[in-house]
Amino acid sequence: MSLILAIYGKGGIGKSTTSANLSAAMALKGAKVLQIGCDPKHDSTFPLTGHLQPTVIDVLDSVNFHLEDVSKEDVIRTGFAGVDTLESGGPPAGSGCGGYVVGETVKLLKEFGLYDKYDVIVFDVLGDVVCGGFSAPLNYADYGLIIACNDFDSIFAANRLCLAISQKSQRHKVKLAGIIANRVDYEYGGGTNLLDQFAEKVGTKVIGRVPYHDLIRRSRLAGKTLFEMEGPGKEECTRPFEEMAEYLLAQPQATVPQPYHDRAIFEAIGGWR
Amino acid sequence: MSLILAIYGKGGIGKSTTSANLSAAMALKGAKVLQIGCDPKHDSTFPLTGHLQPTVIDVLDSVNFHLEDVSKEDVIRTGFAGVDTLESGGPPAGSGCGGYVVGETVKLLKEFGLYDKYDVIVFDVLGDVVCGGFSAPLNYADYGLIIACNDFDSIFAANRLCLAISQKSQRHKVKLAGIIANRVDYEYGGGTNLLDQFAEKVGTKVIGRVPYHDLIRRSRLAGKTLFEMEGPGKEECTRPFEEMAEYLLAQPQATVPQPYHDRAIFEAIGGWR
Repeated sequence: MSLILAIYGKGGIGKSTTSANLSAAMALKGAKVLQIGCDPKHDSTFPLTGHLQPTVIDVLDSVNFHLEDVSKEDVIRTGFAGVDTLESGGPPAGSGCGGYVVGETVKLLKEFGLYDKYDVIVFDVLGDVVCGGFSAPLNYADYGLIIACNDFDSIFAANRLCLAISQKSQRHKVKLAGIIANRVDYEYGGGTNLLDQFAEKVGTKVIGRVPYHDLIRRSRLAGKTLFEMEGPGKEECTRPFEEMAEYLLAQPQATVPQPYHDRAIFEAIGGWR
Repeated sequence: MSLILAIYGKGGIGKSTTSANLSAAMALKGAKVLQIGCDPKHDSTFPLTGHLQPTVIDVLDSVNFHLEDVSKEDVIRTGFAGVDTLESGGPPAGSGCGGYVVGETVKLLKEFGLYDKYDVIVFDVLGDVVCGGFSAPLNYADYGLIIACNDFDSIFAANRLCLAISQKSQRHKVKLAGIIANRVDYEYGGGTNLLDQFAEKVGTKVIGRVPYHDLIRRSRLAGKTLFEMEGPGKEECTRPFEEMAEYLLAQPQATVPQPYHDRAIFEAIGGWR
C-alpha cells in the first residue's frame, strides 16, 4: 500500500512548487511517486512535466462522462525523475463546483487500483479548502502536511487546516506529519520565529525550511524542478527537499494537532513578536 | 446607487490587505465605504477593525437561520476612517459549502437595502474561485479588480479571472477596471514587466503598483491599515492607494478582457523574460 501524503496550505504559499520538488526528491531516492494536482487551475504538476497536461475533467468530458471509457494512460503523464503526474482539473473560475471534481478524482484512483501501484502518492490540494470536496484526500492519506510562511495569514490558515486534520483523524488514519516552512527569510521575514511558536503550541513541528530565493521563482517560470536548474543557490534550495524526502520515506511518527479557536489564534499571533 | 467593486486574485496575493487599504484610502477622501469579506477564513476586514468580527454565518447560526431575525447591526461593524465592515464567514475548512454562504451574503445585502446606503461597496473575494458561489459578487459589481504579482502563478490565475469577468459581463454590468500590481520588487522580482505585457495582451491596464515592503507585512500582523502605521516607507506604501482611490472614485472607463486560453497563456508567459 502506498504512503499517501496530502499537502495543504494557504493559497499562494508555494504548495505546487514544494510538492513538485518533494516528489522529485523522493523519486531521486528511488521511490515510485505519483503526484496528483487537486485544483481547477490544474497547474500543480507542470514543474515536473513542463506542460499543462490533460485533466481528469478534460478526459471525462471527451467521453461524455462515461468513467468506464477512461484509462490510466489518458490521464497520467510521466515527468522528471520518473514521477507520474495526474491533474483533477475542474470548472472554469467562478462556475460549477470544483470540490465535486476533487472528490471524484480521489474515487477514480481507487477504481484504477492506483493506491497499490506507487511507493508514494502526493495530493497537492488547492489553498482555499472551502468545502468537503477539497478535504476528500484526507480520507485516504497517512500524513497531512501543511505549508506555511512566517506570517499571520498563512499561520491563520494553517490553524484552520489543523482543525480539518484533527476532525478527519477521528474517522480516518490521517495524522499531521508536520509543517513545511516556505520562503524562509532571516533578513526581512523573521526567519521562522512565529512558525516555531505555532508548531509547538498545536503539537507538531517544522520538518523543513525552504529559503526565500529567486532561483525558486525562476524555476517556476521555467516549468522545471530545482534539481534541473543551474546557478548560485541551487544546493541551498535543493537540500531541504532531500532532507524532507528522507524524513518522510522513513515514515516518522505524526500527531493529531490541537488547533487554537479561530479568534484565540488571532490574539496569540498578535502577541508574538 | 453605490459604486460596487469586486476584488479577486490568486490565493495569498494580498487581496485583503489591499482591499482594506483601498477602502481606507477612499474613506479618507470622504466616501462612505462598506467592505465585505467573502471568505470562510473571515480575515478580510481585521486590518480595519483590529479584530475578527462575528460573521453572517455566526449570526444566522445563532437564530437558527431565521433571516428575518437578523439586523444590520448584528453583522456590520465600523473600522478605521469610518469604513463599515461585514464578513460572510463560511463552514470550517474542508466541510460544508463555502460558495453557498457567499451567494447568500450577496442576497442579504439586497434585503438590507445596503446597495443604496454607501458611496462604495468593496467585495474582497477569496483566492480560489472554485464555484459559482464565489463569483456571485460579479453579478452586482460595476468593476472587477484583479490583484496580481509579477509571477507566473498569479498571472495564470488572473487570466482565469479575466475569463470569469468576460463571461459575467455578457449578462451583467461588470467590467474589468484593471490590475493592481502587488509586492512590486524592482531589485529581485522583475518589477512589473510580465504584468504589463499580460495587461496589454488581454486589453486592460495596471492601475496601481504597491511595493514589496516589510511595513505592509507588519501592518497585517498589527491588524492595522498602512495609514495607521509609523516608520520608514509609510508614504511609499500609502501613495499608491491614494492614487487608486482617486482613480476609481472618478469612475473611469473599464473593459471586457480578452483572456488567453489556459494553455496558450502557459506558453506565452514561458516566453516572456
